[in-house]
Amino acid sequence: MKRTCVNIAVFCLAFAARAADAPEPPPDAWRDVDPNNLVLIDTKYGETAVELAPAFAPKHAERMRALIRSHFYDGLSFYRVLDGFVAQGGIGEGPASTRDHPKEAVDLEKKWPPLKAEFDRPLGSDLTFTPLGNGDLFAPEVGHVDGFPVGRDTKEGRAWIIHCPGTFAFARDNGGDTATTEFYIVIGEAPRRLDRNLTAFGRVVDGMQYLQKLNRGDVKVDNGVIDDVSKRDGIITVRVASDIPEKERPKYQVMRTASGSFAAEKEKRKNPAPEFYVRRPPPVLDICLAPVPVRRL
Amino acid sequence: MKRTCVNIAVFCLAFAARAADAPEPPPDAWRDVDPNNLVLIDTKYGETAVELAPAFAPKHAERMRALIRSHFYDGLSFYRVLDGFVAQGGIGEGPASTRDHPKEAVDLEKKWPPLKAEFDRPLGSDLTFTPLGNGDLFAPEVGHVDGFPVGRDTKEGRAWIIHCPGTFAFARDNGGDTATTEFYIVIGEAPRRLDRNLTAFGRVVDGMQYLQKLNRGDVKVDNGVIDDVSKRDGIITVRVASDIPEKERPKYQVMRTASGSFAAEKEKRKNPAPEFYVRRPPPVLDICLAPVPVRRL
Repeated sequence: MKRTCVNIAVFCLAFAARAADAPEPPPDAWRDVDPNNLVLIDTKYGETAVELAPAFAPKHAERMRALIRSHFYDGLSFYRVLDGFVAQGGIGEGPASTRDHPKEAVDLEKKWPPLKAEFDRPLGSDLTFTPLGNGDLFAPEVGHVDGFPVGRDTKEGRAWIIHCPGTFAFARDNGGDTATTEFYIVIGEAPRRLDRNLTAFGRVVDGMQYLQKLNRGDVKVDNGVIDDVSKRDGIITVRVASDIPEKERPKYQVMRTASGSFAAEKEKRKNPAPEFYVRRPPPVLDICLAPVPVRRL
Repeated sequence: MKRTCVNIAVFCLAFAARAADAPEPPPDAWRDVDPNNLVLIDTKYGETAVELAPAFAPKHAERMRALIRSHFYDGLSFYRVLDGFVAQGGIGEGPASTRDHPKEAVDLEKKWPPLKAEFDRPLGSDLTFTPLGNGDLFAPEVGHVDGFPVGRDTKEGRAWIIHCPGTFAFARDNGGDTATTEFYIVIGEAPRRLDRNLTAFGRVVDGMQYLQKLNRGDVKVDNGVIDDVSKRDGIITVRVASDIPEKERPKYQVMRTASGSFAAEKEKRKNPAPEFYVRRPPPVLDICLAPVPVRRL
């Protein structure tokens, strides 16, 4: 053992990420991602796949698809990227922006009028909420709906998508009902203070590492907006998978979060490899560290 | 307002990251980072600065300095990088590793014998613990000591550095007392299950974004070890700042976490810009999202 200590050390810390193997989940533990909800964002680093959750924000999902289909984002950029917080994409500021082109800004709002906020939604029979099984600092209850991390308040009768790493949302102005075209994706420790303050309606299912490569802004300079346009990483194209010929489009499956297989995944994470863990961790999960398995077919 | 909606949207989400400006902290709100505790890791993406916390793990801090001063890490790599989890550096596996060179592994352990774990430490008068002021899912109490995020259990009389994004630690084998040379840095949502299971003894104070650019492994393939050595991002050099001529070395200051200025920072984060937040977030903080200000002189 001593002779391979360094190798085993590598192996062992891995166990911290991924507990011992369990039985293969049965085929019905997986659901297909609807290609009409699958958004593909291409940058020079690679393709990031986002699943939209229209059940939580139908108008925002519809707007996103319309923007994509009008090629709105193609050739724009991630113009505000704050390490440990968000990558924000769209028109942005600077020469290409509405700041220096007030007329275009008016035209833009005519074409893409501000949306009514969809910060949360009523509970309903169409939502299968699977509780995580432990408390949370920020919400009365947390769990999953169809693979999305969700907060729930049964007293208020509301549910919402939680801001975890990978959560996809629309940015907005002051005032709740002001989102038009700009989006952001969380790339750092879950900024839960944004929950129910912005319309979150999707999550990255693949390619998070490419967003992590995006050039960063500085929070102290123009709140993270990268003023030097040449330093912004471009958005090559954004597509809805259903617009790609079926044979060419990527296909994903997400583990059903109401399944026994997902319950087993959570249990594994709560009881990680005993041969490595000197001290058993507290038997609780961070809702943003109960990763929902995804596979590309 | 409508005319600049997109710009303001940019601005507003920024506020979510950084609340309204408060009075400038007085000079004594800052402490200098001791250059003997400042570790500089160079990769092709840029320099990452880590502050060591010898008060929590004196033997590991000493080992780290000794490894650096023997140029152990220079020319090695980040050979295991898991998106959302850790970047692990050192000898690693593959052609350059001990797996294929068992004799070298024995020699290595002679030179760098396994360390006794320093997962936590007794409470003591040398630790100024400033409570965060709210509960936590994983520890009886959380707060800060000299800028480091710390868990405390007064019943057991122990304190430990928490695994937040940027936490610096030594990897190990099965068995607590097995760390030798390999280190990791957390690059994702706080993996709190590792708390008190590994020796955490530092944190990134600058250059986190460069670690985020590191090439990733795949958790399903060799637990994230990048088997193709050509795809690993190299460690150009690791230095202790005190070994660099004083005029050339970078100098940092960290806000004193026992100061009124830091108390004000936490309060700002709990009460973010009311002009933007439609709903006041729950008045609690994630210990890993109560960022301790750092400035480079």
